Amino acid sequence: MQCTGDLLELSERIADAVHNAIDGLVGTSDAGRVLYTGADGTPTKLIDDVSEKAIFELLVKEDTPFRVISEEAGEKIIGTSPDHTMVIDPIDGTYNASQGIPFYSLSIAVTTKDLNDIRFGYVQNLATGDTFHAEVGKGSYYNGKRISTSDNQDISRFCVSIYGYRNNISDASRLSENVRRVRSLGSVALELCYVAAGMTDAFADVRGTMRMTDIAAGKLIVEEAGGIVTNGYGESLKLEDNVMSRDSVIASNGLAHEMILKLSTGVVHEGQ
Amino acid sequence: MQCTGDLLELSERIADAVHNAIDGLVGTSDAGRVLYTGADGTPTKLIDDVSEKAIFELLVKEDTPFRVISEEAGEKIIGTSPDHTMVIDPIDGTYNASQGIPFYSLSIAVTTKDLNDIRFGYVQNLATGDTFHAEVGKGSYYNGKRISTSDNQDISRFCVSIYGYRNNISDASRLSENVRRVRSLGSVALELCYVAAGMTDAFADVRGTMRMTDIAAGKLIVEEAGGIVTNGYGESLKLEDNVMSRDSVIASNGLAHEMILKLSTGVVHEGQ
Repeated sequence: MQCTGDLLELSERIADAVHNAIDGLVGTSDAGRVLYTGADGTPTKLIDDVSEKAIFELLVKEDTPFRVISEEAGEKIIGTSPDHTMVIDPIDGTYNASQGIPFYSLSIAVTTKDLNDIRFGYVQNLATGDTFHAEVGKGSYYNGKRISTSDNQDISRFCVSIYGYRNNISDASRLSENVRRVRSLGSVALELCYVAAGMTDAFADVRGTMRMTDIAAGKLIVEEAGGIVTNGYGESLKLEDNVMSRDSVIASNGLAHEMILKLSTGVVHEGQ
Repeated sequence: MQCTGDLLELSERIADAVHNAIDGLVGTSDAGRVLYTGADGTPTKLIDDVSEKAIFELLVKEDTPFRVISEEAGEKIIGTSPDHTMVIDPIDGTYNASQGIPFYSLSIAVTTKDLNDIRFGYVQNLATGDTFHAEVGKGSYYNGKRISTSDNQDISRFCVSIYGYRNNISDASRLSENVRRVRSLGSVALELCYVAAGMTDAFADVRGTMRMTDIAAGKLIVEEAGGIVTNGYGESLKLEDNVMSRDSVIASNGLAHEMILKLSTGVVHEGQ
């Protein structure tokens, strides 16, 4: 395993490659052109494809062994006998990027052979360059400064990112009704990081369309900042090779997690 | 009345003054400190106050006669016998600004003595510097390039900014359920401009807490881009001296406006 500095520098080089690749494409009608169905089962747009190709080109050139799981291409092996897996979403928030809404990100997580043993997470807001990263056991950082989750305990004062408009609309509504502010910014990876930095208090995605490429990095960044991330039953999220799962994703500062579970999924996990 | 070029340049100078004033304050705990209750009846935070003071300082120095209606200070007269009114929100999206979420704006509209005769509108995303402006009869512009609303007619494919989480949650939910994507970005002025530029297809605020300072500029920018802005009854919005009204605000590309009214407010205006 490389040390964190190496992984952070590698992530920065990947982000630079993505910036170069998508420059001039953001906010154009071409950006959202559908090319094929990606490994996650959803349409791959031109801007996703261009970003992912730039990443693979760089990784092949660097020649560091990695098993790579990426949202569009699925699994690829770089080098020989990789010990670690890199879990990538080349563009999280494709719609925003294609429309020119300045809120979309690159998400990179590094795990051991066990996908649930996340060692490093990196998310960059590609519109502003703001960067979040974390290494297991060493805390989370926003533009190099240590961050921690908010200290709000009162859910009626929470600002929460909520996704549930198509499926489980009533679950999303019940949560929305009981908090102070709601956001739906359009990039799950980045919105998890906002919980980590205390910029929001919680995140609830009850659509049942969780993609591990979206959440792997953000999960570690939230946890290393003192927050918690679970499914709708209050259990640890399980990252599996299949890119899409039916789990809800509930992240928070940990101070009213049970209440968020109850409101957003109607499920209370005993003993949590 | 000054020509548009003058108003655009004046607006840019105001934006520069705001940037200088709030620099170093964005994302700090101090930014959100409540100072007093503003003219709109809601708490004025430090970042609102600092921004507004910088604007008044500049306007007094420029000495162009204006009646000014600003979100925090209410009404002030600059110079003698002003023919025109400047309607200002010094920071639209105060929560985002205080939390460091890069989505908050400055909104400036210029009207004749009749507040509903909006002649000029300017909205700048203060986090990115991206700027929207319009002059009545001369179209709308994003960073100097002419813009127009989207050509989507099918509401099931719409991306809509929706606000309704506290009041009328069921209205907001019904609309959310029937569109493709929902956003709640946290700056009404800017989200109206996104409808103008076709970056989203519609905007619906059914909270019943409309502030004319938030929407005056965005309304003209949407209309000059080919879209429409109404209350929940499909009628023209009435801007009045009182800063807060109970109206809903529904903006769209005009191609499915009646359906949005029906879904978001349950009201159908005959003959529209």
